Amino acid sequence: QSSVTVYGSFDGGVRYVNNVNAAGDDRTSVSSNGTFNSNRLGFRGVEDLGGGLNARFTLESGFNTGTGAFDNAANNIFNRTAAVGIGGAWGGIDLGRQYSVSFKTIGAYDPFNYKYTGIIPLAAAAAGSGATSIGGTRFNNDIQYTGTFGPATIRAEYALGETTGSNSNGSAVAVGGTFATGPFSVGGAYTQKKPNVGTAAAPNFQDNNQWTIGGAYKIAALRVAGGYIREKQEFAAAADTTVKNGWIGASYNFTPAFELSGAWYQTKTNVAVLGDGKRDLFIFGAIYSLSKRTNIYADIDYARLSGTSRLINPATGASQDRQTGFSVGLNHLF
Amino acid sequence: QSSVTVYGSFDGGVRYVNNVNAAGDDRTSVSSNGTFNSNRLGFRGVEDLGGGLNARFTLESGFNTGTGAFDNAANNIFNRTAAVGIGGAWGGIDLGRQYSVSFKTIGAYDPFNYKYTGIIPLAAAAAGSGATSIGGTRFNNDIQYTGTFGPATIRAEYALGETTGSNSNGSAVAVGGTFATGPFSVGGAYTQKKPNVGTAAAPNFQDNNQWTIGGAYKIAALRVAGGYIREKQEFAAAADTTVKNGWIGASYNFTPAFELSGAWYQTKTNVAVLGDGKRDLFIFGAIYSLSKRTNIYADIDYARLSGTSRLINPATGASQDRQTGFSVGLNHLF
Amino acid sequence: QSSVTVYGSFDGGVRYVNNVNAAGDDRTSVSSNGTFNSNRLGFRGVEDLGGGLNARFTLESGFNTGTGAFDNAANNIFNRTAAVGIGGAWGGIDLGRQYSVSFKTIGAYDPFNYKYTGIIPLAAAAAGSGATSIGGTRFNNDIQYTGTFGPATIRAEYALGETTGSNSNGSAVAVGGTFATGPFSVGGAYTQKKPNVGTAAAPNFQDNNQWTIGGAYKIAALRVAGGYIREKQEFAAAADTTVKNGWIGASYNFTPAFELSGAWYQTKTNVAVLGDGKRDLFIFGAIYSLSKRTNIYADIDYARLSGTSRLINPATGASQDRQTGFSVGLNHLF
Repeated sequence: QSSVTVYGSFDGGVRYVNNVNAAGDDRTSVSSNGTFNSNRLGFRGVEDLGGGLNARFTLESGFNTGTGAFDNAANNIFNRTAAVGIGGAWGGIDLGRQYSVSFKTIGAYDPFNYKYTGIIPLAAAAAGSGATSIGGTRFNNDIQYTGTFGPATIRAEYALGETTGSNSNGSAVAVGGTFATGPFSVGGAYTQKKPNVGTAAAPNFQDNNQWTIGGAYKIAALRVAGGYIREKQEFAAAADTTVKNGWIGASYNFTPAFELSGAWYQTKTNVAVLGDGKRDLFIFGAIYSLSKRTNIYADIDYARLSGTSRLINPATGASQDRQTGFSVGLNHLF
Repeated sequence: QSSVTVYGSFDGGVRYVNNVNAAGDDRTSVSSNGTFNSNRLGFRGVEDLGGGLNARFTLESGFNTGTGAFDNAANNIFNRTAAVGIGGAWGGIDLGRQYSVSFKTIGAYDPFNYKYTGIIPLAAAAAGSGATSIGGTRFNNDIQYTGTFGPATIRAEYALGETTGSNSNGSAVAVGGTFATGPFSVGGAYTQKKPNVGTAAAPNFQDNNQWTIGGAYKIAALRVAGGYIREKQEFAAAADTTVKNGWIGASYNFTPAFELSGAWYQTKTNVAVLGDGKRDLFIFGAIYSLSKRTNIYADIDYARLSGTSRLINPATGASQDRQTGFSVGLNHLF
Repeated sequence: QSSVTVYGSFDGGVRYVNNVNAAGDDRTSVSSNGTFNSNRLGFRGVEDLGGGLNARFTLESGFNTGTGAFDNAANNIFNRTAAVGIGGAWGGIDLGRQYSVSFKTIGAYDPFNYKYTGIIPLAAAAAGSGATSIGGTRFNNDIQYTGTFGPATIRAEYALGETTGSNSNGSAVAVGGTFATGPFSVGGAYTQKKPNVGTAAAPNFQDNNQWTIGGAYKIAALRVAGGYIREKQEFAAAADTTVKNGWIGASYNFTPAFELSGAWYQTKTNVAVLGDGKRDLFIFGAIYSLSKRTNIYADIDYARLSGTSRLINPATGASQDRQTGFSVGLNHLF
């Protein structure tokens, strides 16, 4: 009788990272929101309304493997997704908290398909910097259109800022699209936001814009993918801050159950006042599937840090300019 | 094998309100706990114990459409309902956090059936003012009896105060009943509480009593309903505060799928020291059902505010004495 | 299609306790995380991977009957269990937040089978004192092996401390086993921890060790069980603190639906500086089953307190050295 599907993903693993602070200490941990695949428990349903129309909803929680806590310090229950919508042959419109257009577009050309999101910078970079309701990988108060027409998928969104007396402050608007034909897939998105770069007590809404392009090529067991994101944040009395991410990588299925992937992700930041920083991440991953729903994974990742991206202790002057990590674990979908 | 039903309601809409502050600013929002119908995700079950007996439970969370957050700042997971009970031909007894007797009684004669609860004052007024465990529309620690005998439904409850050294401080006791025959339904309830009107550090438990009566008349596609609530809160060293709500309204089903409703709700407050205030709310709503589980809704509401009910900025003396709102959205039950 | 089972336990009851503070006040309450059986809502699943292997997970929330709130002030959603693992004929390995080896071992020889956990000291004592991630009855970041071979069950665990620059600080390691043959069951466990007895700002990790043994004997409708736990916490600049728990009790099934139990639990604490304390708890309980999933319960419990275990008001010198409680309620499994 119930029209609700309960689903999720649970990732249990161990991760070792050296040089986690300026003093060069290392750390081994189980606690994570999913090292390989982000943990989630979700509830979703689709109702056929007839005439090609449907109503649908998704409510998705994130949680921590090691502690059982929510994936966010504010304890938002459906921090991952809370959206309800209506769809048809013309596409669909969903309202609520959901993945941004930019995030969905970039996902199509990440060599690692948004795995290892705590290590790889793309998921966080997708929707732009900032802890505001329009930062991170999802937007609050988002009204989003998605339409698929043959090889093309078109997306557009407007995330309300809900600022008293202003419709632009705190809002975001974006358009994006992907085009997939045969072995090729290309895509791009443009997002314009006006986040609060001040404080709650002294709000200061400033323009932010971001664009991204990318592509992927798949032939037999090999997939190559790469892309670029450029984001600029303006300030009232300081120079602009820019963050650029570029990447390229590949994956290869040796057997249907065994896959190896490798990629290079470069993040360049130019923060007003602080100066330039750069992080080059090289990551190699292996997946062995025990079933369609369960796999064992392992990765090795190496990051070179320079400029302001290093781990620096201003008091002692100590700094670390490289970081190596290993992860191994089990991911179970349900 | 599972004896649990997962159910809920998800409401996604946009609401515009003018004059949301003393300066007269407007605001457009998606974030809400459900503009038309309060959002919920619930788990419930009933077990047949034989001999006409059953055991049953309900656990119900509330959440925000625009943010995915809980519906309450304390992040109570089952803020809407957490109750377990046993029932039979003699009625049933449920224990836990649940709707008060007053709330259930008033629901039978609200022209809008507890929709638009953020706009219409009844749901909040039902169980009396105050953010205590026995304020709002639900009581904590509530032991409630419900019995239905032919046209009559009888309710009684005792919500424990759990105050060390006192059984009356913080408690609530209520009786109520509804009688429905043919097109007529009438009901009433009386509630006596002793909420803490002081602080946690300096508790000050004072008497509060509330009574309500109302009725509804339904003929063919037309339903007319109205009622009255009167609540009085005593204080140790100040005059009593009284809040009176009166209302009347009607709904009409033009087709099985299309309904229009309209009502007038008046709230009069007489707060010790501050003085008198009045809010007259006029609200008109339309519902178009896409299926039994999914509808599209819209409303227009207009409030006239006078006295201490106005939006006042004491520093500038600016004030607003009217507010207009529009809402439109989609409500999906699952 | 869904591979998830939703399950739980909901306990609604009323409890009276006298002498809840040094002044000797009493208190009657509904709010509890389950007086008889701890409240829970859980999601679990098992996937058959073939070849005798399985993948499995458990996500379990705890909640309060009277308020609908989480069972923990930090609002951890899966505070009771969040673990994922893999199993086979060789046993199984689970990762995450889960019951400790010590807790599982002691459960086999508690006369009350971990009921009334708010009154009986065993569940809290099982994994040792302290509010750290390795205190209480569960460990965070725990990697646990369980294997059953005929009459023997073997357990071992390592809970990572996740302390930057140290693998021992904050960690726990334990081994345990139970052996059950015919009417006899015996077991024991040893746990070595290094909890933070300082503060977050000034951490101070010190050794803690605990051992436990116990046994149970079951003949026809009678079951007798008893055991002992000894825990020692070291400090840098003070004497050790020791906590010893010893207990013995029995239960008898008069009919398949009606059971009486009684037990004596003694807790001796020797806290550095503060001195010695002792609590003797005598508890008698009755269970009447309405079905396999629903029962009605009642208990009477009496505690004698001496030394530092009394309820003392240092300002007035008032103290209480005994406490009597009664509970009655309904427990429903789903």
